[in-house]
Amino acid sequence: MPGDIFEPSEYERRIERTRERMRDRDLDAIVVSDPANMNYLAGYDGWSFYVHQAVVLTADGDEPVWVGREMDANGARATTWLSEENIRSYSDDHVHSPHDLHPMDFLADVLADLDVDGGRIGLEMDAYYFTAKSYTRLGSNLPNAEFEDTTLLVNWVRVRKSKRELAYMREAARISEEAMLAGLDAIEAGVPEYEAAAAIYDALITGTDEYGGDYPSIVPLMPSGDHTGTPHLTWTDREFEDGDPVIIELSGCRHRYHSPLARTTFVGDPPSEIEHTADVVVEGLEAALDAAEPGVTCEAVEKAWRDTIAQYDIEKEDRIGYSMGLGYPPDWGEHTASIRPGDETVLAEDMTFHMIPGIWGDDFGVEISETFHVTADGAEALADFPRRLFTA
Amino acid sequence: MPGDIFEPSEYERRIERTRERMRDRDLDAIVVSDPANMNYLAGYDGWSFYVHQAVVLTADGDEPVWVGREMDANGARATTWLSEENIRSYSDDHVHSPHDLHPMDFLADVLADLDVDGGRIGLEMDAYYFTAKSYTRLGSNLPNAEFEDTTLLVNWVRVRKSKRELAYMREAARISEEAMLAGLDAIEAGVPEYEAAAAIYDALITGTDEYGGDYPSIVPLMPSGDHTGTPHLTWTDREFEDGDPVIIELSGCRHRYHSPLARTTFVGDPPSEIEHTADVVVEGLEAALDAAEPGVTCEAVEKAWRDTIAQYDIEKEDRIGYSMGLGYPPDWGEHTASIRPGDETVLAEDMTFHMIPGIWGDDFGVEISETFHVTADGAEALADFPRRLFTA
Repeated sequence: MPGDIFEPSEYERRIERTRERMRDRDLDAIVVSDPANMNYLAGYDGWSFYVHQAVVLTADGDEPVWVGREMDANGARATTWLSEENIRSYSDDHVHSPHDLHPMDFLADVLADLDVDGGRIGLEMDAYYFTAKSYTRLGSNLPNAEFEDTTLLVNWVRVRKSKRELAYMREAARISEEAMLAGLDAIEAGVPEYEAAAAIYDALITGTDEYGGDYPSIVPLMPSGDHTGTPHLTWTDREFEDGDPVIIELSGCRHRYHSPLARTTFVGDPPSEIEHTADVVVEGLEAALDAAEPGVTCEAVEKAWRDTIAQYDIEKEDRIGYSMGLGYPPDWGEHTASIRPGDETVLAEDMTFHMIPGIWGDDFGVEISETFHVTADGAEALADFPRRLFTA
Repeated sequence: MPGDIFEPSEYERRIERTRERMRDRDLDAIVVSDPANMNYLAGYDGWSFYVHQAVVLTADGDEPVWVGREMDANGARATTWLSEENIRSYSDDHVHSPHDLHPMDFLADVLADLDVDGGRIGLEMDAYYFTAKSYTRLGSNLPNAEFEDTTLLVNWVRVRKSKRELAYMREAARISEEAMLAGLDAIEAGVPEYEAAAAIYDALITGTDEYGGDYPSIVPLMPSGDHTGTPHLTWTDREFEDGDPVIIELSGCRHRYHSPLARTTFVGDPPSEIEHTADVVVEGLEAALDAAEPGVTCEAVEKAWRDTIAQYDIEKEDRIGYSMGLGYPPDWGEHTASIRPGDETVLAEDMTFHMIPGIWGDDFGVEISETFHVTADGAEALADFPRRLFTA
């Protein structure tokens, strides 16, 4: 399996680019806890991030070292390209231990074994799954180490995608199209929300005729009715009703790469106010897509959206997009560049973003999104799905 | 919606029991970051744990205080029973901020406003989503606070379930049965793993004739072939083959309450070694279930399993079960009591566990599990599903 998904040379490039950033910050090692970064550097892929685990990359070692639970070492053997000596696992009495044992005690031993326990060690201080306790425990085990916050160090290496990564994101986009169709087909008055969610899930995992889909890092979200103002509530037993606006946000996933897509549908005949709002969202979205090209800043892309909707006396202050791709629950975003005022990140070829602008009225909201790839001279939406208000 | 899922009096009891534990530890407040604990105390339910959020409970305040992102405040209004003044939200420039803003800066202000910024504050140091950075940032904002590690304080309050909680777990068990049937039906030689995963997902969300299912906190796991030794790898495009053992582990979910279930199936005619192993697992599982009753320790339950399989010269060292119920990704376990040697937790009525023993040979594994409820005088499995090796 290792080598099937990415060539060894691709991992080598990732590691070289990561080590360049480590050298810039004079780091002897980094401890990578974010599951997406673990996958990026070592290929590791398993639903094991509910226990502590990490990939350690030293400044001058040959290979990264995977550290995890004994039960998951076979999973590391199956999915990473690491040699046996670089798969290090702790025993099960470190897991939710009634004794005073913590996986970070084991990780500290690994760092000592790698001879970096007295060096400058980067920690992903604000990454999912790297808890406060992990930090204090590492600190008490490694009194001579100097810790640096390297939260987004690997994430920034991830922002420009390789051809193979883009191919997986395009495959994910095909799945997103299928799942969006399934959701739009399922939603009608009298149908419970969960039935639409089930139809979307079925399509997300069944995928296309050629390949299946992974689990997405975020469940399909379908805020409806006056809940379009609660974007992160999940489905319930409630039945869709005539007069409901429904926002569908979902993502296909392929080898952990995503291509999110959002559309809005209306149950029954939409009031002209909602149709007009949808037209404005599409116009603003397309203006922002037109503005995106290498050399332009993220905030300039956002401004194209904001200037467009301002013609209709509409203001919106949230960010409208973010860099994304590889991900694990709870998020497919990379937490690097955002499309919003104040973000001066300059777009470069092969960056990928989910641009998801929306406008909310008093009792409805409209969101229409695209995942796009920054090309040599512009931006290409990965999905091919009509940009308009749908009706059910 | 608040009040539909649990009566206000149930939240009051939960808070009173939590405050008892806070008094025992002389705490002025706790900051609850685990999404399951946030739900337990305040009812909050949304896929928003990818940004920092918390529920603050003071020793003598009236209501908990929800703290989260502005975009999620409406979700808090919709799902919690809290009054408006206790829903406090931070602006979007705190999210993956290019400025030096962190949600914990806002939380520190809330703690000051609640007049506990100079007091003893409990933090869930090892909970999912409470990052190292959250901790250091709170510390620099609150130089006069004294922090205590209260990682499992609320989790231990959760171990004994109310009638309503048990009712939801029984509903989840009905969904687990449907999903297991769907998985067993789907698996056969030539079918890709993702198609079985899609069938399981469809059943998990479609639920029963009376109600739908929530997303489970862990995706369906289906290690197959020689991958039964990699329990946390997820499905791929691989097709099931004649001769594959397949372990299916899944859970229905209802209002975030789970009832996990595992069974093993074999594609083709199972070798007698596997049939024998399955018989041993069932015998051991049933011995452990028979041993479970109020007053007995967790380790005694494990011993019943271990003594049984020892008769067949089999040893296994991992834990075979854990307390569970309410949960969010990445886990449905409570991280409190485990069924394993050394865990002296005494079973009490209305605790709930997932007991998932397994035995691995060189190239196969067999797991057969039950979620059980500790009754007044024994243990009751929540699902009603044959305990045996299946064939496909």
